[in-house]
Amino acid sequence: MATAVAPATAAAAPAAAVRDDYEAMAKLLRDVSSLSSISGLVGWDEMTMMPEGAAESRAKMKSALAGVIHEKSCDAALGEVLAKLQAANLDQLNQFEQATVREAARDYKKLTAVPKELAQREAELESKGYQAWVKARQASSFEQFAPVLQEWVDLRREKAALVDPSGPVYDTLLDDFEKGMTSARLDEIFGEVKAGLVPLLAELRERGTPPSDAWLKGDYATERQADLCHKIAVALGFNLEHGRLDVSVHPFTGGAHPTDVRMTTRFKQDDLTEGITGAIHETGHSLYEQGRNLEYDGLPVNQALSMGVHESQSLLWERMVALGRPFAAYLLPLMREYFPSLPADKSAEELYGAVNVVKVPSMIRVEADEVTYPLHIVIRYELEKALIEGSIQVSDLPKLWTAKMSEYLGCEPESDARGVLQDVHWSAGLFGYFPTYSLGAMYACQIYKAAEADLPGLSDDIAAGKFGRLKLWLNEKIHRVGSLHPSGDELMKAVTGAPLDPQVFLSYLKDKYTELYKL
Amino acid sequence: MATAVAPATAAAAPAAAVRDDYEAMAKLLRDVSSLSSISGLVGWDEMTMMPEGAAESRAKMKSALAGVIHEKSCDAALGEVLAKLQAANLDQLNQFEQATVREAARDYKKLTAVPKELAQREAELESKGYQAWVKARQASSFEQFAPVLQEWVDLRREKAALVDPSGPVYDTLLDDFEKGMTSARLDEIFGEVKAGLVPLLAELRERGTPPSDAWLKGDYATERQADLCHKIAVALGFNLEHGRLDVSVHPFTGGAHPTDVRMTTRFKQDDLTEGITGAIHETGHSLYEQGRNLEYDGLPVNQALSMGVHESQSLLWERMVALGRPFAAYLLPLMREYFPSLPADKSAEELYGAVNVVKVPSMIRVEADEVTYPLHIVIRYELEKALIEGSIQVSDLPKLWTAKMSEYLGCEPESDARGVLQDVHWSAGLFGYFPTYSLGAMYACQIYKAAEADLPGLSDDIAAGKFGRLKLWLNEKIHRVGSLHPSGDELMKAVTGAPLDPQVFLSYLKDKYTELYKL
Repeated sequence: MATAVAPATAAAAPAAAVRDDYEAMAKLLRDVSSLSSISGLVGWDEMTMMPEGAAESRAKMKSALAGVIHEKSCDAALGEVLAKLQAANLDQLNQFEQATVREAARDYKKLTAVPKELAQREAELESKGYQAWVKARQASSFEQFAPVLQEWVDLRREKAALVDPSGPVYDTLLDDFEKGMTSARLDEIFGEVKAGLVPLLAELRERGTPPSDAWLKGDYATERQADLCHKIAVALGFNLEHGRLDVSVHPFTGGAHPTDVRMTTRFKQDDLTEGITGAIHETGHSLYEQGRNLEYDGLPVNQALSMGVHESQSLLWERMVALGRPFAAYLLPLMREYFPSLPADKSAEELYGAVNVVKVPSMIRVEADEVTYPLHIVIRYELEKALIEGSIQVSDLPKLWTAKMSEYLGCEPESDARGVLQDVHWSAGLFGYFPTYSLGAMYACQIYKAAEADLPGLSDDIAAGKFGRLKLWLNEKIHRVGSLHPSGDELMKAVTGAPLDPQVFLSYLKDKYTELYKL
Repeated sequence: MATAVAPATAAAAPAAAVRDDYEAMAKLLRDVSSLSSISGLVGWDEMTMMPEGAAESRAKMKSALAGVIHEKSCDAALGEVLAKLQAANLDQLNQFEQATVREAARDYKKLTAVPKELAQREAELESKGYQAWVKARQASSFEQFAPVLQEWVDLRREKAALVDPSGPVYDTLLDDFEKGMTSARLDEIFGEVKAGLVPLLAELRERGTPPSDAWLKGDYATERQADLCHKIAVALGFNLEHGRLDVSVHPFTGGAHPTDVRMTTRFKQDDLTEGITGAIHETGHSLYEQGRNLEYDGLPVNQALSMGVHESQSLLWERMVALGRPFAAYLLPLMREYFPSLPADKSAEELYGAVNVVKVPSMIRVEADEVTYPLHIVIRYELEKALIEGSIQVSDLPKLWTAKMSEYLGCEPESDARGVLQDVHWSAGLFGYFPTYSLGAMYACQIYKAAEADLPGLSDDIAAGKFGRLKLWLNEKIHRVGSLHPSGDELMKAVTGAPLDPQVFLSYLKDKYTELYKL
C-alpha cells in the first residue's frame, strides 16, 4: 500500500511474482496430469479388462476425456502464466523448476499451434488409416494402402508447417518422439550403424558358427511362464505396491502414475525365450515409470525425456542384462525350477549362446534380434525421411523397400504383407517414431558401460540374482532426472560423459558376436 | 433472408428451435455422462485392481475428474438452453425427451444451488467423518462421533435451505435418493410397516418353529462358490459381452455404462447361502444396468429412477426369486453339482426352509433378513428425520436407539459399536438414504406380484431354471423406462396399477412365514 518502497522490497517483489507464477502454472499442469493419468488407466482397462461389447461406449468416454485434456492443456490462463515466466529471470527457480517451465512452454506452443479442425482430421485419419492398413495387409496390396498414406504425408506436412514454419519438416515430426534430435544427427548416427552392421552381419552369416538353440525348443505351459516371469520382474525390482502384472494380447507398460504402473505380458507355449525377454523388456519400462521423481509429480520435468530414452531402459534390462553372460547363470536354475523337463546337461554358457542366435534371414522387424534390428530401422528411417522431404513418392516405397532389404539385410520380402506393410506405425501417421527404437538400443549400451564402470562387481551381482545396485543407479542417473536435460545427447553427456556414440554399440555387438560365432 | 415470411414457416420456426435446443442440451449432457462413465470405471478399478500404494495418486485423479464433471454439469451454456426449453412448448418432444428436459433442469437447479465453497466443505467433512466414525466404532464410543455428526446435521440443513428454501429440510435431503418421495408419505408407509411387522416378528419368535438350517453349515471352497455364482448370474441373464464378474472385499455393481457393467461378489468359506444370495442381489442390480435404454444413452431419462427402484431390482431377484420355493428346486441340484458333500437326503422344500430362517435376535442391519430388516430401517428413519427436524438432539441418539431396538426388535445392543455406530451412512452425511432399502423391498414385492399376473407359469419357469421371460418383462417395464416417471409411486402405478402399498409386502411376509414357521 505504501508508495515509498525500500530497494530490498523492490527487488523482492518480482521474485515473489515468479514464485507465484510458477506455482500457478504447476497447479494447472498437475490437474492436466491427473486427467492424463485417468486416460492411462482407461487405456490399460481397455487392453486387459473391458468386455467385448463395450467398444463403442469406451470410444465415447475416451473422446470426451481427450477433449477435456486438450481444453485444459490449451487453457489461455496457462498460456498467460507461461508467457510471464518465459519473460522473467528464473534464477531463483531450481534446475528442475526451470526445466518444467521450458518443457511446459514447449508443449503449450506445440499444442496451440494446431487448430481443433486439424486435430479432428488427424483423429479421423487414424481410424481410417488403421482400417485401410489392416485390409491392405490382409490382401498384401500396398496399392490399397497408398492413398491413405499419401493423406498422412500431406497432413503431417501441414501440421509441421504450423508447429515450426522454419525448420525441416521431418525434424519437426521427429521432435514429438525424440526431443532435441535432428535428421542431420540421425544421418550421422545411422550412417555409422549401417557401415558397421552390414559387414558384421554378412560375416556372421557367411563365416560364423551359430550357437545351438535347438535344445530350448519345447512345450512350456503359459501359466508357469507367467509365474516365472512374475518372480523375475520382482527380482529386478518391480514394486507390486505400486503396480500390477497382468496378461494381455499385446504386452505393454501403462497405467496411471509412478505409484500405479500396469505392466502386461504375453506368453507362447512354444517359445520360452520370447516370453522371458518380453517380460524383462516391459519390466525395464516399468522400473523407469516407478522410478520417476515424485518431488515433481505431475510436472513435465518428471516425464520421460523421450521415447528413445524410455526404450533405453527396457532394452538395458532385456539386452544388456538378460541377454548377457552373467544373467544366464542366474536364469538357468530358475528355468529348471519352473520347467524340470529342460535338459539337465546344459550349462549357463550354453543358455547364453542359445538366447543369442542371430535370426537370419530377417524379414520381420518385431522378430529381429539385436544385430539385425537396427538395419530394419535404418531402412524405415531412410524411406520415411525421403517421403516427408518429397525426394521419393508413396508409390516408390515397395520397390525401395525390397532394394534396401536386399542391400542391408541380404533378403527380399516375398510379399507386401511381409515387407512394406508389416508395421502399423505409418498407418497412424507416426513418422519419426522408428528411429527411437535403435536410439534406445544404443543409449542402453552406452549407459550400461557407464554403470559397469561405476559399479564394480556388477557382473557378479547379476549372476547371483542381485539387481538392486543397478536399479538404484538407474533410478538416480536416469529415472529421477526425467526431462531435466533437453535431449538424449545431453542426458548421455551427463550420465556417460559423452554424447551418443554409435561406435560403443557397434563394438559391443562385434565383440559379443564374433566370440559367440567363433570368428 | 426474405423479410416476407409465409405463415407455415413462421409456425415451424419455434418448433425447429425447440428441436435444436433439445439436441444442444443432449450433446452437453452426453459429454458429462461419458465423463461420469469414466468415474464409474475408475471407482471399480479402485475396489478391484488398484495396487495398495496408489491411494494418494488415485485421490488426486478422482478429485481432478470430479472437478471437471462439476464444471461441465454447471456449465452456463447448459443452464441457458435448459431455461429456453423450460419456457417452450415441448409438445413436439416425445415423453422420454420431455422427461429428459425435466430431469436435466432438476439436476442443474440442485447442482448450481450449492456454491463451490460448500461443496468443498462437504468433501472435507466426508473424509473427516469417515475417520471419526472408524475411530469411534473401534472405541465403541458414540461421544467421539457426536461432534462430527452435529457438523453434518448443520451442513445438511444449510445445503437444504439453498436447494429448496420452502420445503421441509428432510424432504429435500430425501429427494437426492428417492425422487418424489416425502416424509409425510414415508410416515404413512413406515407406520403401516411397523404396525404389521412388530406383532408378526413377536409371533414368529414366541410361537413359531424355525425351519432347520443346521445341515447347510459347512466348508465351501470360495473358488467353487464363485464358479457356481458365475453360472447362476449368467443363467439369470447377466451378459458377459457387456460386463465382467470379479471378486472384491465389498460386493457391488458398478462400471462404466450399460454395455460395460462391472459386478463384484465376495464369498465366505463357511456361508454358502450368503455368497449365493449376495451374488444374485448384485445380478439384479446388473440386469437393471444392462437393461437400460440405449436409445436415450447418456441422458438423465435413462438413469435409474431412484435408489429404491434400483434396490427393487436387486431384491426382486434375491428375495422374490431366489428365496422363493420354486428357485430351491432349481438351486439344489446345482449346489450338489458344485458341492457333492451336501447331504443327499435333503429336499428342495428343506432348502427353501433353510434359507428362510429369521435371524433373531437381530442386532445388525446388514445381517438382517427380510422380516427384521424393515424394522432396522424404521428405527433409522425415525431417528434421522427427528434429528434433521430438530425435535431430538445428536446426544439423544444412543438412548433412543436402544429404546426403539427394544420396542421394535425385542433386543438391545450391548455397545455403541453394535448399536448406533454400526452403519457408515451418517458419517458421510447420508440422511434420507436408509428408507430406500425398504422401499426397494416393498417395490420388489409389488412388482413381482404384477409379473406373476402377467406371466402365467412363472413359478414353473423358475423351478426349471428359465429366467428369460421375467428378465425381459423387467427390461420392458422397469429398466428401459428409466426415469420417465417422476417418482416411485408413479412407476408403481404404471407397472402394477397402484401406488406403493405396504400391505402387499406385509401380506407376503405374513403368508410366507406363518407357513414356514407352522403357525
